[in-house]
Amino acid sequence: MVKLIILYGMPDDTVEFERHRDTVHFPLLQRVPGIRKIETTRITGMPIGDTRFYLLTEVYFDSKDSMDSALASKQGKVFTRDLMGFATPLVTVCSGEVA
Amino acid sequence: MVKLIILYGMPDDTVEFERHRDTVHFPLLQRVPGIRKIETTRITGMPIGDTRFYLLTEVYFDSKDSMDSALASKQGKVFTRDLMGFATPLVTVCSGEVA
Repeated sequence: MVKLIILYGMPDDTVEFERHRDTVHFPLLQRVPGIRKIETTRITGMPIGDTRFYLLTEVYFDSKDSMDSALASKQGKVFTRDLMGFATPLVTVCSGEVA
Repeated sequence: MVKLIILYGMPDDTVEFERHRDTVHFPLLQRVPGIRKIETTRITGMPIGDTRFYLLTEVYFDSKDSMDSALASKQGKVFTRDLMGFATPLVTVCSGEVA
């Protein structure tokens, strides 16, 4: 499996962040094709590191091809466009192979 | 469930990183009590963000109490001491509640 790892930094306005995430951002993610699992983690402790993270969203796919197709799809593009407008420069995104 | 999230930055010497991780670091982690699951992800793509991550290790526990006890245990202290010597300043550690 591969996963997309989205680390959201601490927003200035957590109420507005949650509102947008609940009503727009997360529903857009759920519409992306090929997703096998979404795991959301609310960051509560940050013992080491400079960046304060607020939320971690991990999106699992069967393969890199499946992830690439998902992100290239219409729904994938709508989601990433929302991510860019909503969370940048607070967001760190990477992807990797689950061992 | 809660999890400890360990993000390892790109090491200068990946061969030595892998050697130490395989022979010392990961075995020390496995000895920590109360762990329910360990998920390792090899970072292959990093489309957004300043820090280059190399590896993500996620360590799951039943509860925050269980995680705190694990980290306070002898084995937990041995593991975190190794983490500090081995990966700092390349490491980012946070913890959170899995929704």
